[in-house]
Amino acid sequence: MISHKAGASIITIGDELLIGQVIDSNSAWIGQQLGRIGIPVIRRVAVGDNAEDIHNALDEESKRADIILITGGLGPTADDITKPALCSYFQGQLQVHEPTLEHITELFEKIFKRPLTEVNRRQAEVPDCCTVMANNLGSAPGMMFLKGQSIFISMPGVPHEMQGIMENEVLPFLEKKYSYLPIIHHTLLTAGIGESMLAEKIKDFEAALPAFIKLAYLPNFNLVRLRLSATVTEPAQAAQASALFNKLCVEVKDYLVTDRDETMAEAVVNILKTKQATLCTAESCSGGTIAAQLTAIPGASAVFNGSVVCYSNETKMQLLGVTEDMLEQNGAVSEAVVRQMVKGILNSIPSTFALAVSGIMGPTGGEPGKPVGTVWIAAGTKEKIITEKMHFRFDRTRNIQLTSIHALNILRKFILNI
Amino acid sequence: MISHKAGASIITIGDELLIGQVIDSNSAWIGQQLGRIGIPVIRRVAVGDNAEDIHNALDEESKRADIILITGGLGPTADDITKPALCSYFQGQLQVHEPTLEHITELFEKIFKRPLTEVNRRQAEVPDCCTVMANNLGSAPGMMFLKGQSIFISMPGVPHEMQGIMENEVLPFLEKKYSYLPIIHHTLLTAGIGESMLAEKIKDFEAALPAFIKLAYLPNFNLVRLRLSATVTEPAQAAQASALFNKLCVEVKDYLVTDRDETMAEAVVNILKTKQATLCTAESCSGGTIAAQLTAIPGASAVFNGSVVCYSNETKMQLLGVTEDMLEQNGAVSEAVVRQMVKGILNSIPSTFALAVSGIMGPTGGEPGKPVGTVWIAAGTKEKIITEKMHFRFDRTRNIQLTSIHALNILRKFILNI
Repeated sequence: MISHKAGASIITIGDELLIGQVIDSNSAWIGQQLGRIGIPVIRRVAVGDNAEDIHNALDEESKRADIILITGGLGPTADDITKPALCSYFQGQLQVHEPTLEHITELFEKIFKRPLTEVNRRQAEVPDCCTVMANNLGSAPGMMFLKGQSIFISMPGVPHEMQGIMENEVLPFLEKKYSYLPIIHHTLLTAGIGESMLAEKIKDFEAALPAFIKLAYLPNFNLVRLRLSATVTEPAQAAQASALFNKLCVEVKDYLVTDRDETMAEAVVNILKTKQATLCTAESCSGGTIAAQLTAIPGASAVFNGSVVCYSNETKMQLLGVTEDMLEQNGAVSEAVVRQMVKGILNSIPSTFALAVSGIMGPTGGEPGKPVGTVWIAAGTKEKIITEKMHFRFDRTRNIQLTSIHALNILRKFILNI
Repeated sequence: MISHKAGASIITIGDELLIGQVIDSNSAWIGQQLGRIGIPVIRRVAVGDNAEDIHNALDEESKRADIILITGGLGPTADDITKPALCSYFQGQLQVHEPTLEHITELFEKIFKRPLTEVNRRQAEVPDCCTVMANNLGSAPGMMFLKGQSIFISMPGVPHEMQGIMENEVLPFLEKKYSYLPIIHHTLLTAGIGESMLAEKIKDFEAALPAFIKLAYLPNFNLVRLRLSATVTEPAQAAQASALFNKLCVEVKDYLVTDRDETMAEAVVNILKTKQATLCTAESCSGGTIAAQLTAIPGASAVFNGSVVCYSNETKMQLLGVTEDMLEQNGAVSEAVVRQMVKGILNSIPSTFALAVSGIMGPTGGEPGKPVGTVWIAAGTKEKIITEKMHFRFDRTRNIQLTSIHALNILRKFILNI
């Protein structure tokens, strides 16, 4: 039996989602935004560019949820069939929406600086039974339909266009129309303890949680995020959830990276800001990934001075003071070399702290005693350097991710203990 | 009306998917793998950690598809309820699976080097009505069930564990059991032309496509991928699809980046390999993202020597020969500075080609005449340098992505035209 629930269902449309050519990041973003205004997402469904499948999904999801958010298939080309499929489903007729046509004309003239073609002009046509929601960043407008108990909102699949429509139109509208019980999430991040050991450690805490609070474990390699989700009916429960979250932070304090829903890189940047310290990195096997993770954070320039990505031995020698002797005696993946990389990068890019990594990420490059996944990490200052050897057992992509996360965690602990 | 189809439906389980804490990359990966053995994915559904919702999804998807692949909710902790939900759905009893218990014991002793807890031991319990599919990389095994016309396979949600089970067990099994009509995909990547202009350009080609071939447009900012998907019933059709794809490449040749399903970074690495040339980069605003994209590619070390991420003016001066005068007269985001960055990086990291970027990614840092999104890009050799000024209109994350992609495209064209 399917029961109708207060909340939203997300339908994403596009063959590219089913064949796996595109990863659906829209649904996650929408889920986060709805959560902020207290609207739970009940289900997410992805279907191909096929009218029958779209109609079935609309039927089924509207039996379940108050709000159906639809993305994708609104482009100007022949494979984009969402608009005709919605038009027939809601029994409308396509007609030109004049404000949208004006907007599209201006967009092509002033911003895109490309001629407006007939297919672009047709993007201003919408079913006469919908309410238009403006798309300031693109040509396909959002469209809202009402049917039965449910409200349906269709948006383009291009992420920034969808996000613009959500922020300017959909979220303010939904927040006004619906008043749900707010769900409050508290999230912390741990490192260096497995999911099951963590569960063992906090089993009494978990057993004593009140019914309105749910605990979730979100493991990702050696990192585990813990999330408390409280469905709050009165203010006292919000305070209780906060108090329990603080208690949870104490229970896992030996492994706690951060008590906010932030990444390892964000945690490191925030610690550096607090300490008014700066950082530079010397990256061999991680190839700039650590620098990219740090600089993805707004304001990172206040604490991050730069990096040398030394993807060849020559670069290690020329910019980091690694010597031919060191390389011959120890190999590029060695404690001696990462130590020198810390010293060298602190010379090239003077900073409070430095982080260096050298390893073999695979699939090839392994050698006897140094299999694929071997990584040396060093963190230090001008006065003190610590090193650690790791061994990861995965593919190239994951080995690089793991190297970056572990290196940042080693640096984080070094900074806090100094 | 729902019709049962030959193909697969993917059910992903976990509250974290619905609240948007985790982006579902598993479904895309599964879709790609199934596509390779000719199994189409019909739908994807995400539900929360809730037995009723899981049961409904199993009911509904088995009405649609031969194969139901399920991921998530198999962890050792109390919020992981997929196993009991499957056990009750298929009316089984939990019992210890001895080979799995042996594997888990070994895994904890030898690899994880952590004590085995009672909750880990319980991961060896499986419903007595399932066939176990071994998980070499983790403790929760895959489980296969049969009911009605459909086959159900449940796997953990941790990506590398799921991938291991798919590769070792599920894909070989499905390939043997099912023989579908193969779907052949051909994909190319264009740059510098919008989706609608492209559609206009190839409308005669598109109109003349035979019924067994579908054309899809996959736009992502200024890049548009075009995909031909052919459902092939006889060998001649595969040849026809190839011929039409070659024709398509000619039609869009002025904008063609690559005629393979590869990223811009992969295209650049492959061109460098062909030319037996090497590359270095000097990255200010992209913060190492270009280097990270290049080094994510196996074998990149053959052509990529390294990068200086110069996230402060001091780093630009110390490592790239940018002078105080240059910075004062032009600012860090200027043609003069990116030109010098190319010269400087070719001195520091001798290579055939160099690529340099400097810009303002936001949200802050804009100034009169140089709003957020302004980027200068330079590509060159010791003999010749070209520059280009871009202006992106998005948020920090997207501005960084766009900067990296456009910089690589400018470099690509520079290399090909030299």
